[in-house]
Amino acid sequence: VPETLSYRELLEAWPVLGDEERVDGFSILPREEADQLFEALEPHDQLELLRLLPEEQRGRRVEHLEPDDAADLLQEASAQEQTELIQLLDAESREEVQQLMQYETDQAGGLMTPRFADIRPDETVEQAVARLRRTSRGEAEHIYYAYVLDERERLIGVVSLRELVTAPASTRVRDLMRTELLSVRGDADQEQVSGLFARHDLLSLPVVDADGRMIGIVTVDDIVDVVQEEATEDIHKAAAVGVLEAPYLQVSLLQLLAKRAPWLVALLIMQFVTVLAMKRYSTQLETVVALALFVPLIISAGGNAGSQAATLIIRAMALGEVAMRDWLRVIGRELAIGASLGSIMGLVGLAGVLTLDAGAGALGLDLFSGHAARLGGAVALSVLAVALWGTLIGSTLPFLLRAARLDPATASAPLVATLLDATGLVIYFSVATVLLRGALV
Amino acid sequence: VPETLSYRELLEAWPVLGDEERVDGFSILPREEADQLFEALEPHDQLELLRLLPEEQRGRRVEHLEPDDAADLLQEASAQEQTELIQLLDAESREEVQQLMQYETDQAGGLMTPRFADIRPDETVEQAVARLRRTSRGEAEHIYYAYVLDERERLIGVVSLRELVTAPASTRVRDLMRTELLSVRGDADQEQVSGLFARHDLLSLPVVDADGRMIGIVTVDDIVDVVQEEATEDIHKAAAVGVLEAPYLQVSLLQLLAKRAPWLVALLIMQFVTVLAMKRYSTQLETVVALALFVPLIISAGGNAGSQAATLIIRAMALGEVAMRDWLRVIGRELAIGASLGSIMGLVGLAGVLTLDAGAGALGLDLFSGHAARLGGAVALSVLAVALWGTLIGSTLPFLLRAARLDPATASAPLVATLLDATGLVIYFSVATVLLRGALV
Repeated sequence: VPETLSYRELLEAWPVLGDEERVDGFSILPREEADQLFEALEPHDQLELLRLLPEEQRGRRVEHLEPDDAADLLQEASAQEQTELIQLLDAESREEVQQLMQYETDQAGGLMTPRFADIRPDETVEQAVARLRRTSRGEAEHIYYAYVLDERERLIGVVSLRELVTAPASTRVRDLMRTELLSVRGDADQEQVSGLFARHDLLSLPVVDADGRMIGIVTVDDIVDVVQEEATEDIHKAAAVGVLEAPYLQVSLLQLLAKRAPWLVALLIMQFVTVLAMKRYSTQLETVVALALFVPLIISAGGNAGSQAATLIIRAMALGEVAMRDWLRVIGRELAIGASLGSIMGLVGLAGVLTLDAGAGALGLDLFSGHAARLGGAVALSVLAVALWGTLIGSTLPFLLRAARLDPATASAPLVATLLDATGLVIYFSVATVLLRGALV
Repeated sequence: VPETLSYRELLEAWPVLGDEERVDGFSILPREEADQLFEALEPHDQLELLRLLPEEQRGRRVEHLEPDDAADLLQEASAQEQTELIQLLDAESREEVQQLMQYETDQAGGLMTPRFADIRPDETVEQAVARLRRTSRGEAEHIYYAYVLDERERLIGVVSLRELVTAPASTRVRDLMRTELLSVRGDADQEQVSGLFARHDLLSLPVVDADGRMIGIVTVDDIVDVVQEEATEDIHKAAAVGVLEAPYLQVSLLQLLAKRAPWLVALLIMQFVTVLAMKRYSTQLETVVALALFVPLIISAGGNAGSQAATLIIRAMALGEVAMRDWLRVIGRELAIGASLGSIMGLVGLAGVLTLDAGAGALGLDLFSGHAARLGGAVALSVLAVALWGTLIGSTLPFLLRAARLDPATASAPLVATLLDATGLVIYFSVATVLLRGALV
């Protein structure tokens, strides 16, 4: 029923529509609503739609984009498409877009728009407002702030539009402007930029080049997308999935496979270490087969405790709540937590073994070949030790990765669990060997 | 060295400072910078600082807060502190704050400020600007939009300040305003609100009551925090950690334990099912001890494949990329992916067993008691089957949870892995029993 959809409804439904529904819904929109919808789409969706639209409609779509959005769109396109699309822009936009494309899409320079409102320190409020009226004409994406530049285009202050509107007409900009202001270099990473927005509740952030000249602004509406995107990447990394470049349903099966198979294969290969660890204790396994029964339980306990710790530390690092210098404090806390978690889990483990044994006994079965008490002790001590060990490794690994200048998020939950499995087995079998000495000859 | 810190530097350093450093650094700031710092702090940090400050300074701190920020602060406080703090507000603010506190902090009504700029449809641009000058006086947090209300305070349109500033003075607001606009009810969930901001690139969103009367606006700078917070909750849930109410280093050890122990204990108890599953195959284990060697590898393969699938689907649901009606398409895709992943992993598993056996053989050792080929086949088939099964369960579980009106994020990676462990064992031992029929008598 695309006939009845407004552009906002169409936008909401976009991810779940097929190609034909999209083109149909888009084509029957009034001219201005079509512009608004196209602008609100993600670059990836814009490009897909462009490919579906007839040739003569492409020009209008591209030439109406803001330079930063046009640059994002072009960066999604193939080299040949880029050449075709860039011809559709007017000379001024083309130059702006080419300047933006020098930066990566995940840098401040790739997020910014080069169209901002600039005024001069010696202008009066009246002159400044007149300049804004003259230069804005729908050009400056956000004139909620006017940036004060000196004669060499270096940023020296900022005035909000609200301050300009409510100040006496003859006041000098110099006397109105605030001079303590944040800015970032064009090559700053988007995670740093979004961190500044989150901590300082900014609406926009000026971007400067190496000489302090102002080259654009990043606005908060683009930052909401950045924060979502960074969080999605971290969530995917936590489950050992590579970074997807489009929404789940729009990623082809082959791409999806390419993002998932490498990590699963790597983890599987690492798991062969557990085969050797088990082999090392095959004499014990042959003597008391009941020992094997607790292998999945023990390694799962270590892995779960470890991935909790790793996830907490990695997220706290991403939010800037925990820094390198906090390592001692964090690991101290995690040791205390790990010991407590381990003690609680150890007691639950012991209770579980005794309960199972009693339950089986009531049915006339002997689950643990008469070793219930000693197995229960071995399970309790092992669970305590693997939970403590898992917590320690899970909290240490992100610091080690960061110290090695790698992304702490590489310490995904499956990786932490896999690293812990072999050591968990060694702990369990060592404890069991001591406690079951008599039974094991 | 707090003497040398500006308020922005102090704000950046805040999470890693001790109590004394915070009070010292704060106390020596110039009056206005102290106001700005206090406003920029999270409610939790504001409250901690208030508790440390001398009584006479608390009044100034609280009375300078915007009503929405004051409400957030009060909602962090104990009942007794609330009564004390609310006395520090003037009568008008107290009423506004009490109205806001009817909503939860995670609802639109709890995020909004009741101070917005409103104009009337029959005013001219000149009259509207005069009204804004009269009513704003630093009151309205964001007058980047002026909202057009009818005589019954119902929202009928919106004009951006930029449009007001650049339009001819005699134009009627009615002829300038846009009437297609988004709004939310006060009791809308913050996840719905942040989704609207992300998809529509909004700067602010009007909030209305049940009768369509406008009661406030949510602004995008608050949404950046919401998006961060929601992502952190989802990341923590994915590792089976309860929702922390403050940054990691500020949560007490006891609270941290309370957020982690319940899930770990629950998962441990569920793991006792694997003990029974293993017990069921103890005859096979007694006959061919080498069978036990692959137990950790097999269950890890299933768990990893399952948590990848669950994580992808849960995040796509949170972003609105996947809805309930997509279930068939998603599960179809995941079956195809699971079969491919399983085939690749199965081949790697077979190669791993044969390589290990050949390597051990060269050293004169017999790792697999002469069953290398058949064990390799059993490992390959089992890995294929558990990866496919894990992918299926991991992708189905979020839909089942949502259908039951539960949070899909409950399907944490450790839970998915634990649910898969017992079935993984059954698959493995069943396949092995068939393939090793001769060896197992």
